Amino acid sequence: MNIQTWTINETSFDPSAQHHKETIFTIGNGYLCARGVLEEGYPDERRATFIHGVFDDAPLVFSELANAPDWLWLQINLNGERFTLDQGTIQKFERFLDLQSGVLTRDMSWRSPSGLEVDIHFERFTSLGDEHLLYLRCQVTPKFDGTVEVRAALTGYSDNEGLAHWELLEQGLFDNKVAYLVTQTRASQIKLVSGMRVKASPRAHVEYWDAPNAPTFNLTFSARNGKAITVDKIVGVATSRDTDDPLKLALEHAANAPAWNKALMQQEQAWAEEWKRSDILIEGDDEAQLAIRFSLFQLLIAAPRHNNNVNIGAKTLSGFGYRGHSFWDTEIFMLPVFIYTAPHIARNLLDYRYQRLPAAREKARANGFEGAQFPWESADSGEEVTPTWVPHYADRTKQIRIWTGDIEIHISADIAYAAHLYWRVTGDDAWFIEKGAELVLDTAKFWAARVEWDGETNYYKINDVIGPDEYHDHVDNNFYTNYMARWNLKTALEVLDWLKQASPSKAEELIQRLDLTPERLAKWIDVISRIFLSVRLDGLIEQFEGYFQRKDIDLASLEPRSISAQALFGIEGCNETQILKQPDVLILQYLLRSDFTDEQIRLNYSYYNLRTDHTYGSSLGPSIQAIMACEAGQFDDAYEHFLRSARADLTDVRGNAQDGIHGASAGGTWQAVVFGFAGLRVHEVDWEVRPRLPKHWKRIKFNFYQRGELQTVDIKQ
Amino acid sequence: MNIQTWTINETSFDPSAQHHKETIFTIGNGYLCARGVLEEGYPDERRATFIHGVFDDAPLVFSELANAPDWLWLQINLNGERFTLDQGTIQKFERFLDLQSGVLTRDMSWRSPSGLEVDIHFERFTSLGDEHLLYLRCQVTPKFDGTVEVRAALTGYSDNEGLAHWELLEQGLFDNKVAYLVTQTRASQIKLVSGMRVKASPRAHVEYWDAPNAPTFNLTFSARNGKAITVDKIVGVATSRDTDDPLKLALEHAANAPAWNKALMQQEQAWAEEWKRSDILIEGDDEAQLAIRFSLFQLLIAAPRHNNNVNIGAKTLSGFGYRGHSFWDTEIFMLPVFIYTAPHIARNLLDYRYQRLPAAREKARANGFEGAQFPWESADSGEEVTPTWVPHYADRTKQIRIWTGDIEIHISADIAYAAHLYWRVTGDDAWFIEKGAELVLDTAKFWAARVEWDGETNYYKINDVIGPDEYHDHVDNNFYTNYMARWNLKTALEVLDWLKQASPSKAEELIQRLDLTPERLAKWIDVISRIFLSVRLDGLIEQFEGYFQRKDIDLASLEPRSISAQALFGIEGCNETQILKQPDVLILQYLLRSDFTDEQIRLNYSYYNLRTDHTYGSSLGPSIQAIMACEAGQFDDAYEHFLRSARADLTDVRGNAQDGIHGASAGGTWQAVVFGFAGLRVHEVDWEVRPRLPKHWKRIKFNFYQRGELQTVDIKQ
Repeated sequence: MNIQTWTINETSFDPSAQHHKETIFTIGNGYLCARGVLEEGYPDERRATFIHGVFDDAPLVFSELANAPDWLWLQINLNGERFTLDQGTIQKFERFLDLQSGVLTRDMSWRSPSGLEVDIHFERFTSLGDEHLLYLRCQVTPKFDGTVEVRAALTGYSDNEGLAHWELLEQGLFDNKVAYLVTQTRASQIKLVSGMRVKASPRAHVEYWDAPNAPTFNLTFSARNGKAITVDKIVGVATSRDTDDPLKLALEHAANAPAWNKALMQQEQAWAEEWKRSDILIEGDDEAQLAIRFSLFQLLIAAPRHNNNVNIGAKTLSGFGYRGHSFWDTEIFMLPVFIYTAPHIARNLLDYRYQRLPAAREKARANGFEGAQFPWESADSGEEVTPTWVPHYADRTKQIRIWTGDIEIHISADIAYAAHLYWRVTGDDAWFIEKGAELVLDTAKFWAARVEWDGETNYYKINDVIGPDEYHDHVDNNFYTNYMARWNLKTALEVLDWLKQASPSKAEELIQRLDLTPERLAKWIDVISRIFLSVRLDGLIEQFEGYFQRKDIDLASLEPRSISAQALFGIEGCNETQILKQPDVLILQYLLRSDFTDEQIRLNYSYYNLRTDHTYGSSLGPSIQAIMACEAGQFDDAYEHFLRSARADLTDVRGNAQDGIHGASAGGTWQAVVFGFAGLRVHEVDWEVRPRLPKHWKRIKFNFYQRGELQTVDIKQ
Repeated sequence: MNIQTWTINETSFDPSAQHHKETIFTIGNGYLCARGVLEEGYPDERRATFIHGVFDDAPLVFSELANAPDWLWLQINLNGERFTLDQGTIQKFERFLDLQSGVLTRDMSWRSPSGLEVDIHFERFTSLGDEHLLYLRCQVTPKFDGTVEVRAALTGYSDNEGLAHWELLEQGLFDNKVAYLVTQTRASQIKLVSGMRVKASPRAHVEYWDAPNAPTFNLTFSARNGKAITVDKIVGVATSRDTDDPLKLALEHAANAPAWNKALMQQEQAWAEEWKRSDILIEGDDEAQLAIRFSLFQLLIAAPRHNNNVNIGAKTLSGFGYRGHSFWDTEIFMLPVFIYTAPHIARNLLDYRYQRLPAAREKARANGFEGAQFPWESADSGEEVTPTWVPHYADRTKQIRIWTGDIEIHISADIAYAAHLYWRVTGDDAWFIEKGAELVLDTAKFWAARVEWDGETNYYKINDVIGPDEYHDHVDNNFYTNYMARWNLKTALEVLDWLKQASPSKAEELIQRLDLTPERLAKWIDVISRIFLSVRLDGLIEQFEGYFQRKDIDLASLEPRSISAQALFGIEGCNETQILKQPDVLILQYLLRSDFTDEQIRLNYSYYNLRTDHTYGSSLGPSIQAIMACEAGQFDDAYEHFLRSARADLTDVRGNAQDGIHGASAGGTWQAVVFGFAGLRVHEVDWEVRPRLPKHWKRIKFNFYQRGELQTVDIKQ
């Protein structure tokens, strides 16, 4: 086994990179994730643990994932002198995240300001086998005789970059063994309980400090030069979203948790199962190999395994960016990874949307439509949580209006597409009958209400939208949106026909409940045939009505640049050009590949590729661009786009990894390998590959599920 | 001595009134104030201590006083069972705030859920003699033999209604005696240090718990039935605004603080000095007597004695309302109390404005004017901190524009007026030469730039403003604003003439620095003679141009009502009526009384009194209304208005005392007694009274300073 392609490494401590490193050293277990902060703290850190679904109200952004009470806090005192990296001398610093087991390790040698020397070793993991259990080990090897104190605390006053979400309800010591803390979010009133136990070797003098909002175990050791001290901090965590009695659940977990060695073994086994299903082997390109595993790891730690009432945010559970809100990033970029490698997770994520149909219907209704209109940004309630106004960066009397929550409406079709894809790939008829069909039908109903009949041109139009390419807003007849709306309507009709066969009673129920009258269905057919879609005679698609009249800028002539085209030209200025944040048309061609000829793919790729702000536009673009480059036969391009996607977090190419993992890049990187380089095409009953590996790749090998059967793809150059 | 008129009492615990009570049981010493929360905490409490000048950045409101780390936290455990009023049985509950000494006392008998009985007595005060010292005493008398634990902590995670301002820098135990906590505000980077010492009787087993962000002393007592346990918690506090080494200052204070009895004696002496100067004796009306003392107390605890770089916020230091921002409330309502009874405090408050002349000049410049334009809301920087946009209460896509920061401009004249009044009453020529004159001259310069020449009518106009009556916005030629602007210009010319005599060099310096050319001064004279002032032939003043054309509503016909006229008619609807939030014209006549005849006073009083929303309009109105009722001979009215002002906080007549003390009401209540009922008129060298006491008042007696000499007024019915 090549360790290089299974571990994320750091060999020195660079305070200026700490927020980036906190993000990429995030660990998690699908229930929660914890950023890779230092246990003992560091100035200006962005300390955070996010638990799925634990949202609380927040100004401007309406709702955000509340940064949970801190379970990692641990302080080491050497003869009363506090260990902290911002003082003393760091003689050795190494950190590695083992992707194979989800264990984060830190090894240090440090000399205190007064000259005491010590080796310190930290390990932590969040149990994948039992998602309510968190493990932290600290090993201190003093190079002196004296006293070592290790303090382990739970602190209830975590905040979200200055916003305090938690109120202390209760704390104490259970069974003389487990220190616990009960806190509650202020508005959403979610109770969260953490219970902490410590184990020490050699024997320590242990005190429990019941200090307000910071229950602490203080362990005092007689230190002997060269003799290692080990403290395990084991934390059980549960919320009122999990159970009516989270105190009981958390305490039981903490009290009965397996000891470190056993828990670690279970952890390795649980992760081995994950990798058996999910791993992609890439030979000949260690960077790509590591990147694909890192991407999979990041998706897997954020993926809810036992909860079908949460979704994955655009920044997963790894940062404050986008506040934990979910976008189309889930359905179009991340979900396919799960559909093909972990269908049970994909189903949970789709269930989240299904359960929010009432909120989507309410959004449609409030906007004067019918059917289900999903929010652009979604948190717990399923209501729209896109900020509407944000303060102007320079002028205190101004506010900037954010329009995506109002008019970036393609997400409703994207969700229908994902539900349909899940069904097509998994063959999970039972789920589709029970839930998926309704998602497709009710979003179709929305589109039929949303389109506007234009009597002058005799077309149905969808005016005033934002497509995936957000450099252009308030556009009419965005091709992606119109085509996906048409697909949604067409698919809904097919689904309804199928349902009548597969489950007549469910078909009848939905026809009644969604009021799918013959008149309504006739309108759907009419919209499908007469929706406005602007394609040039040669097959070049116009991204939206009037796009070709916008200023055509030679993007290459602007290089080198270090800011986005939007920053360069201004929001309005950029809107007037043909420059794209991401390639709308190409993404559509990717999603509905069989609707387009190879020639159409080549033509549109070569037009839009030149006009896309690949480096500073959307982080969502490069992965799909890589796939479409493969489809267009532009293999060098493809690898370049792939690297941009693969590096989004690991090398922080956009400078914003501090805000959290780019979940869509992670999912897109996987798709680029599988559907781009391997060229996998999954058909109704079989599948094929059209390999176009980068020249230096020797082999790729991966698994995927088709209709419940594990398939293996193994391609050698 | 009548205890009833010196103490604020509460004889039972009513959780539904807790926020109101927290406000009125606020104590302070001019350096900080602490709301009257329960030491042991209570659900949904609004726990807060505010320290003058300790502002930090905040969304929407730009800057707010950061709720300081909590010094009051104290927990009592009886045989391990926690004392808290939301459990067990309250057998006795009494709270009294002794206005004479600033000591807040709480006496309770309580039975725990398990049946343990205990008497608990709390006392606290913030030292007036040494503003860095805070005292808290807890006496526990168990009715059982067993164990009593008393925990005293400093906690560093206070927040402002969900906004966390503090970061922990350091904590520890100094000299094995003082636990300390060093925190810093996130944006403004103000360091705050609290140091805590405890003294126990009888001897306790004392542990120090160095738990993160919550250094705690845990005192364990062997409890004997009927035997009192006493714990004194003594806290030293200092910030980096006070000294370069706040740690040293706080620790020294905590370490060397006098013991309880000595400190209490010093406290009583210090307050006796305050009351000797400030007290008003009212015989025949206990409610009025208590209210006036309560008003004075609230002003005195918020009044900076040793700091001329802070002001008093509209809600003093007693609540989250208005975020600690200062308005004209200081200069027009509160400052006169200090000018007449504590000139050294008045001077500090005016110095705050003087030191913010650069920011006021920058505001004028940014608006295209010259001179000094003071912000409507002011925090530490002196920049405008009025929110500009706030979220719409019902519609997520809308924002409400707050205009006062842009166009409620009369405050610049109000500040000039206050500086002039201070000088006139105190005769403090040295201050006026050094600072006051510049305040008057540079605001005059602003007005001369702000007026707009109207060639059609040959008048100078001031269009698009909000006057003190905020029910009407975007009005032209608000009489209050125009007349005060004229007064400001006129007074500036007089001041300049005087200055040329009194300090030719200062006059020369200001003429140079403020560029007071003959042309500029000629313009001032021109504006004084030709500024638009709309007065009907009979002497009735029109509040603003076109006011008399607005709908005339019979306010009496709307009674009974429980909401403001603005809530009743809507913002726009109310704007279209003649209903006032507060009586603009009458306030002007009060400020510049000698400019108006008695007949003009009577006429305008009777017109505007009928059209003012006394009950739910501005809390600033009733006190001045009371004075003008006296001037107009409407003595029954006067007392009614006076009570509205006097009751603003004590009986919470507006239902918003929870947000903090109505500082303007407190100052206005004092003015109503002194200038209304006693009818004091202070002239250049002497003074007179025109008593018109309420019928049941037997006597009032008070002191004031004129030109440094203490004067005594003693009026018997």
